[in-house]
Amino acid sequence: MSELYAIQWRDGEEELVLLDQTKLPNSIEYKTYNTVKGVYDAIKTMVVRGAPAIGVAAGYGLYFGIKVAPEDSFEKFYSTVEGKARYLNSSRPTAVNLSWALNRMLKKIREEKGKPVPEIKKILKDEARSIHSEDVEICKSIGENLITLLRDNMGILTHCNAGQLATSKYGTATAPMYLAKERGWHLKVYSDETRPRLQGSTLTALELYMAGIDVTTITDNMAAVVMSQHKIDAVIVGCDRIAANGDTANKIGTFGVSILAKYFNIPMYIAAPTPSIDLNTKSGKDIPIEERDPVEVTCRFGVRTVPEGVKVYNPSFDVTPHENITAIVTEKGIVYPPFEENLKKMIKA
Amino acid sequence: MSELYAIQWRDGEEELVLLDQTKLPNSIEYKTYNTVKGVYDAIKTMVVRGAPAIGVAAGYGLYFGIKVAPEDSFEKFYSTVEGKARYLNSSRPTAVNLSWALNRMLKKIREEKGKPVPEIKKILKDEARSIHSEDVEICKSIGENLITLLRDNMGILTHCNAGQLATSKYGTATAPMYLAKERGWHLKVYSDETRPRLQGSTLTALELYMAGIDVTTITDNMAAVVMSQHKIDAVIVGCDRIAANGDTANKIGTFGVSILAKYFNIPMYIAAPTPSIDLNTKSGKDIPIEERDPVEVTCRFGVRTVPEGVKVYNPSFDVTPHENITAIVTEKGIVYPPFEENLKKMIKA
Repeated sequence: MSELYAIQWRDGEEELVLLDQTKLPNSIEYKTYNTVKGVYDAIKTMVVRGAPAIGVAAGYGLYFGIKVAPEDSFEKFYSTVEGKARYLNSSRPTAVNLSWALNRMLKKIREEKGKPVPEIKKILKDEARSIHSEDVEICKSIGENLITLLRDNMGILTHCNAGQLATSKYGTATAPMYLAKERGWHLKVYSDETRPRLQGSTLTALELYMAGIDVTTITDNMAAVVMSQHKIDAVIVGCDRIAANGDTANKIGTFGVSILAKYFNIPMYIAAPTPSIDLNTKSGKDIPIEERDPVEVTCRFGVRTVPEGVKVYNPSFDVTPHENITAIVTEKGIVYPPFEENLKKMIKA
Repeated sequence: MSELYAIQWRDGEEELVLLDQTKLPNSIEYKTYNTVKGVYDAIKTMVVRGAPAIGVAAGYGLYFGIKVAPEDSFEKFYSTVEGKARYLNSSRPTAVNLSWALNRMLKKIREEKGKPVPEIKKILKDEARSIHSEDVEICKSIGENLITLLRDNMGILTHCNAGQLATSKYGTATAPMYLAKERGWHLKVYSDETRPRLQGSTLTALELYMAGIDVTTITDNMAAVVMSQHKIDAVIVGCDRIAANGDTANKIGTFGVSILAKYFNIPMYIAAPTPSIDLNTKSGKDIPIEERDPVEVTCRFGVRTVPEGVKVYNPSFDVTPHENITAIVTEKGIVYPPFEENLKKMIKA
């Protein structure tokens, strides 16, 4: 049993090592990459997934293109690299972190224009490594802020996967769990399986278990019982987008968990890197709820579990209203209500 | 598409027709029985399931034994039938309705002792049919009482299967849905899939769909979103046991649904045949919560969805506290709070 990392960088060999997440939870396989094409395929086929992890992989992927780009003129070098970036960006066109990381790499090249190309190449390797290490630092800071709200021996409920497998290290909602482990604390984590795609059992439970953290899987509809048995001291979840008033979009089921937490007077914490906070979105009403393919509900287990012909509703996200949230915890600090005022303050600080 | 019946009796042929529920939801097969052994196997292998349906099937099953029992003396006749009853009773030893139905048949024989055996045989056929028709009547009465709380075009949420497939007809929680259909009403039913065993999608959604009732499957964690969208006007569920104070044990997840219903001010109705009300159980604290095999969570269809080694908690039932229940509806009427007082009144009436 050893901790799972979505992404590792071997600096001597200049190799990227990715955990093949398409094989989880039943097989743990690491794959080694050193070409643009390899990383493109890894992102496209979801060997690597989770927005932050994709961004980091793309940075290294572009570096593989940079390494072998022509050195005879800056223009030729830059236009070659730009082509590789466009190619990588097409692997999953909707992932924001992907284009963000590639644009950051290209911008760095432009900034270093005066220098000889071989030197620029070295600088760009450092840039890819910075994207990686900054991602680790953001998650670690979220965890350090969150852990101040916890104590040894607490029970924690989490939903879906906002974990190490979606980031470079620590994850967001899982960051305080890994830090607690480093401190020798014993947190008892309950992980909702998170229907329909089961990220809670196949990813979160897996990564925590492999890291030696005490984790128990429950089906989503068992959360109320576990809470009623005083087993949960805090709920910690990630988020997809936070509106200016604190309303938080996250994986389907989070809203229900927030209602249960309120009923049992259990604090509800949202782990959020600041880019997830969108002050241009006024409230949850302005966040569209994506409906996904019914097949996720009808055939998740490989066999049909909903009869042919029966209608299925499959919203992929829900919005937890700000009044059900105790605190939003970012890498910059802990934000309490009133969120409208305090989120703005934190972002502008 | 035609309505599914767990049990049908062909009186001319004296044949019992059972829907093979082991094949659901992917195949609809009816099987015909006319021997004790056949019915024994059907109960044992769960071709027929659901406590009321098992009781009815057992009544007919014993009648098949009665039909061919020796007629030369009452004693020989009775002891043969008693042996058949013991045999049938061993098919699923823990099902209360099974032994209840068999004992009722035996008691009837003893009551008719003075009559010629061939005449007793005819009386016992009528007794098996009475068990059947009384089960239909109880469900129908529950439905008639429940439907007075509903109106045309309402949205209903239900959990697990308290349906026609578990009874002779109508089911308990589903009874008002079938009656509404008979009246030409349009109810829009949302059926929680009900992890881990998925009775909501494989049984409830199936039987309502086959009866032409508007049903939509959702995963358990989508209930809050559906409620927030004003799609649900009432929650109707069945029950396993109701304590004297109204606390209600039912399939895992019911407690959570009751908390959501309260949050959204949606009435929560429990459909309950009076034998489910146990005045000797003081409150929910006195109802033990059965924990079942983790394999239900980890491998619902033979495919592993929780990694090896990860702990699983699998309580099969939970207890909805009486303060979250709007009304308990039995075949005798509607019971409102205070339940302690009003349940006693109804039972003793």
